Amino acid sequence: MSEGSAGRTGVALTERQKISWLRLIRSDNVGPIAFRDLINHFGTAENALDALPELSRRGGTKQAYRVATVSEAERELEAARRCGAVFIGIGEPGYPAALRQIDGAPPLLAMKGDLKAATRPSLGIVGSRNASVSGAKFAAMIARDAGRAGYIVTSGLARGIDTAAHRASLETGTIAALAGGLDRPYPPENIGLLDEITAGRGLAISEMPFGWEPRARDFPRRNRLIAGISLGVAVVEAAHRSGSLITARYAADFGRLVFAVPGSPLDPRCHGTNDLLKQGAIVTTSADDVLEAMAPLSQFELPLPSVREPEGQTQSSPAATSDNDRAAIVHALGPTPVETDDVVRHTGLSPAQVYLLLLELDLAGRLDRHAGGLVSLTSVE
Amino acid sequence: MSEGSAGRTGVALTERQKISWLRLIRSDNVGPIAFRDLINHFGTAENALDALPELSRRGGTKQAYRVATVSEAERELEAARRCGAVFIGIGEPGYPAALRQIDGAPPLLAMKGDLKAATRPSLGIVGSRNASVSGAKFAAMIARDAGRAGYIVTSGLARGIDTAAHRASLETGTIAALAGGLDRPYPPENIGLLDEITAGRGLAISEMPFGWEPRARDFPRRNRLIAGISLGVAVVEAAHRSGSLITARYAADFGRLVFAVPGSPLDPRCHGTNDLLKQGAIVTTSADDVLEAMAPLSQFELPLPSVREPEGQTQSSPAATSDNDRAAIVHALGPTPVETDDVVRHTGLSPAQVYLLLLELDLAGRLDRHAGGLVSLTSVE
Repeated sequence: MSEGSAGRTGVALTERQKISWLRLIRSDNVGPIAFRDLINHFGTAENALDALPELSRRGGTKQAYRVATVSEAERELEAARRCGAVFIGIGEPGYPAALRQIDGAPPLLAMKGDLKAATRPSLGIVGSRNASVSGAKFAAMIARDAGRAGYIVTSGLARGIDTAAHRASLETGTIAALAGGLDRPYPPENIGLLDEITAGRGLAISEMPFGWEPRARDFPRRNRLIAGISLGVAVVEAAHRSGSLITARYAADFGRLVFAVPGSPLDPRCHGTNDLLKQGAIVTTSADDVLEAMAPLSQFELPLPSVREPEGQTQSSPAATSDNDRAAIVHALGPTPVETDDVVRHTGLSPAQVYLLLLELDLAGRLDRHAGGLVSLTSVE
Repeated sequence: MSEGSAGRTGVALTERQKISWLRLIRSDNVGPIAFRDLINHFGTAENALDALPELSRRGGTKQAYRVATVSEAERELEAARRCGAVFIGIGEPGYPAALRQIDGAPPLLAMKGDLKAATRPSLGIVGSRNASVSGAKFAAMIARDAGRAGYIVTSGLARGIDTAAHRASLETGTIAALAGGLDRPYPPENIGLLDEITAGRGLAISEMPFGWEPRARDFPRRNRLIAGISLGVAVVEAAHRSGSLITARYAADFGRLVFAVPGSPLDPRCHGTNDLLKQGAIVTTSADDVLEAMAPLSQFELPLPSVREPEGQTQSSPAATSDNDRAAIVHALGPTPVETDDVVRHTGLSPAQVYLLLLELDLAGRLDRHAGGLVSLTSVE
């Protein structure tokens, strides 16, 4: 570790570390959890990168394992620079404090705009793309009042409610979380809005690589980002099984407040929000309902996360694992998600061994990770 | 007591008893609570009638106390007959079982229509007079489904939601609770609807005398009747401080279920219902939400009430009370409602004495009775 102040705000990564981190998270099958476990095991991303091929081979990868190269990472950093964006690591001072707390927070976040926005307490506001006039008006009202009260308003840059929330908080600050790379904003009609956001007191963020075109399946991850960054999420109009409900589900899982605006049971745009109310979401009919519930939360100093490269005690080659142990793990797992602790108990192996063996399977593309730290074998096995 | 089967369904009053009951409840300052206490003290309404002048004199009445005469009661019974209505006493088999349970249930209920309707489990449905189209549609939907599920739908014959609820349950049965006498229905445009209700499987009910024109201040009492008769009350659209919220408040006080239909925070007709949701009302977006919550309640056999004339042990003249004790009671009371038990403790008098002294003050028009058995001196004292 080097420059940057330590303490509660985190420590800055060196340029060299940042390249290693970017290579590691962009390498095959390295998700945020594997990233964390790799850093925990090897001490640094650099050491972990050296170990990746061996680990994935042990895990039984079916195809050649690809480690992201230095020049790939440098190209992405250059793309970020051209775009006017930077990468912030999970342990660095500028990383959103609330996002750090969630399991599987992105190790590196691409950010563009007013970086200070990421360190302010956030209210997420999400809802239908085909919002009603009154829904959009209500979202704007909450966004405006929350902005005046000091919150940064985070949303997904989608049509409808998202757009209304961003627009109403342009002056006070708003964060747009993208499902693709920062240089691939979606939808096209909101590119102008995004430019306004990043030119002013707002911020665009993404955990996806530059150049990444968002696909349908990337949006839940974007929703997770909105929920993770926010102390509370307000859902204004949402149909059954809509993306906004995914955001609300993530928010509830992360222990964040979930607000839902009631609406007519005869309007399909309100079915999802009314369902949230049935599940215990806070009935929200004014910005005050949100601000009163949020006030106590925004006082907290959030602790730093566990993903940081420690000084000293690094390890460049992985601890040995045995084929027998690996077989026991594979045998213990199935398509049903189970807790890692149960795998430890079931196999009688040490936690450190189990974590490493799971990491191998993960890197080999044979492991699925689920909310709450659960794991299962990928269904193609 | 004489004809009629005893047991859980109650015992029928004789014609002579009914005239005494009607005289007693129509005499000056005799509300349901005073009625109950009088029956408890004197054993029969007939004995209580004899004691009324003396009790009110002791209580310090300022004007001549008026006991309803036999001929007045006979005239009202005749008016009921002409109207096609009957009076049912609180202890009689045809009295609504849920209404019996509330503190201050009317001792006599005037009923017109299919009397069996009063013995079926009821769902109250109330709401705005200036309902929206979708509000009226939703009320009709709940009423229809609740009717099909075997519930009688009770409402207040008002415009808007009430009308929609009655109409949608005409075939399965509906109860209209009136704020005035049964021969003084309000509003005029719903007289045709009321005729349809009473000609079919429905019922009109009132606790007010025949010939009584409803005034604004009679409507909360009508709302109380709706809440008292129903195992649950669904509120569909209600503005802040509307009558429907009074009905909901009574329902909550009586331990009944309160359902509220969510609506847009930007529609004033939904402010009251959304407030109910904030206070814990059941989020209601379909008839199933109501029926699922009601199902366990409608299984219960409700016990008989305490207001019945016992056989033997009647008493025709009131127990003596002393002026000192009365002064102590008046001194103990003030404009703030207090519990009768506290008056007992504070004065050191026996509960029987306190009840009788309070009864005297009540009959003299010097006592106000409040929800939960609380009492206060009338503010004009």
